[in-house]
Amino acid sequence: MKIIIVGGTGTIGKHVVKALEAGNEIIEVGSKSGDFQIDITDLSSIQSFFEKVGPFDALVSTTGSAHFGPLSKMTDAAFRVGVDSKLLGQINLVLIGQHYINPKGSFTLTSGSLAEDPIILGSAVSAINGAINSFVKSAYMELENGVRINVVAPGVVEDSPHYFPFFPGDIPNQMHHVAQAYVKSVVGGQNGQVFKVG
Amino acid sequence: MKIIIVGGTGTIGKHVVKALEAGNEIIEVGSKSGDFQIDITDLSSIQSFFEKVGPFDALVSTTGSAHFGPLSKMTDAAFRVGVDSKLLGQINLVLIGQHYINPKGSFTLTSGSLAEDPIILGSAVSAINGAINSFVKSAYMELENGVRINVVAPGVVEDSPHYFPFFPGDIPNQMHHVAQAYVKSVVGGQNGQVFKVG
Repeated sequence: MKIIIVGGTGTIGKHVVKALEAGNEIIEVGSKSGDFQIDITDLSSIQSFFEKVGPFDALVSTTGSAHFGPLSKMTDAAFRVGVDSKLLGQINLVLIGQHYINPKGSFTLTSGSLAEDPIILGSAVSAINGAINSFVKSAYMELENGVRINVVAPGVVEDSPHYFPFFPGDIPNQMHHVAQAYVKSVVGGQNGQVFKVG
Repeated sequence: MKIIIVGGTGTIGKHVVKALEAGNEIIEVGSKSGDFQIDITDLSSIQSFFEKVGPFDALVSTTGSAHFGPLSKMTDAAFRVGVDSKLLGQINLVLIGQHYINPKGSFTLTSGSLAEDPIILGSAVSAINGAINSFVKSAYMELENGVRINVVAPGVVEDSPHYFPFFPGDIPNQMHHVAQAYVKSVVGGQNGQVFKVG
């Protein structure tokens, strides 16, 4: 398979690359590194990427940022950081990529446990994650030519210890467990699912 | 109680007004009618409304639009209709209104069944509804002075028969049932909840 991994050079993405590289052609995409660079907040950047990379079998996205901070000081502008990046950045990869993906291909996006298991300071991130989950649970019905879509919802991960204090009582996800959720989406047959990582 | 109902002149809102008006001061807010007018996509319009209306005990929002349409033709711009209106329009009512609401007050937003029970053409609406649900499930933890927040997630409602063909097999919600979900949020004590309407 030709597999595009947007965020393939990042904390989670590099483990997904390792888990999928045997026997597949991996295209690593970053904002500043990788085989190709995209600014996921820029529609023309996404469009020109798909034109350059050509038809593909799977796209995994492990990218996108969103705002952490207190509700009492949250602003429209802070909330929109996640709208533009983690939410529409990923959704636009699907909206545009659906016209380039091979039949029976798959999209795998990334949300997170905060959609259902919130933390203090996390309400904007929760909203963005919830949006991605619900989008996937609906969009799978309309993708054509056997193309599938799923989303992985990791919790705080072992390779991000700087986040641990914000997730009291949460057992950090092992990177191997996180990576395997993406493998399940890409190589397996499920569709329209939210894969939590335990 | 002094209760603000944004969307109080609309399909659902007018039933919420009837259900809550006995013994309360109701402020009906519309885009073009009602006691006050707000453009919920305009931060300055929201800000100046709260400055004019003064302290209040409950805000109910039954307002906001989003894009229905096929995934294959969906664009970033179409998706952002719901981001700007139903999602951030309602969330900005909370982000700004939290600085004006009385202690022990409440916010009640509106999402919809599509967050979890999708229909063809509804993927953008599903995403917006999912975002609102997850925001509420997180934000309740940070509201101060005993202020609560909940969201009502109606399905297709009896007073909107033009939507029925898009919801095959769904039994339309009775308006009385929908209105009582808002009463439960405003008058009851629950917090951080998504009230589905059966």
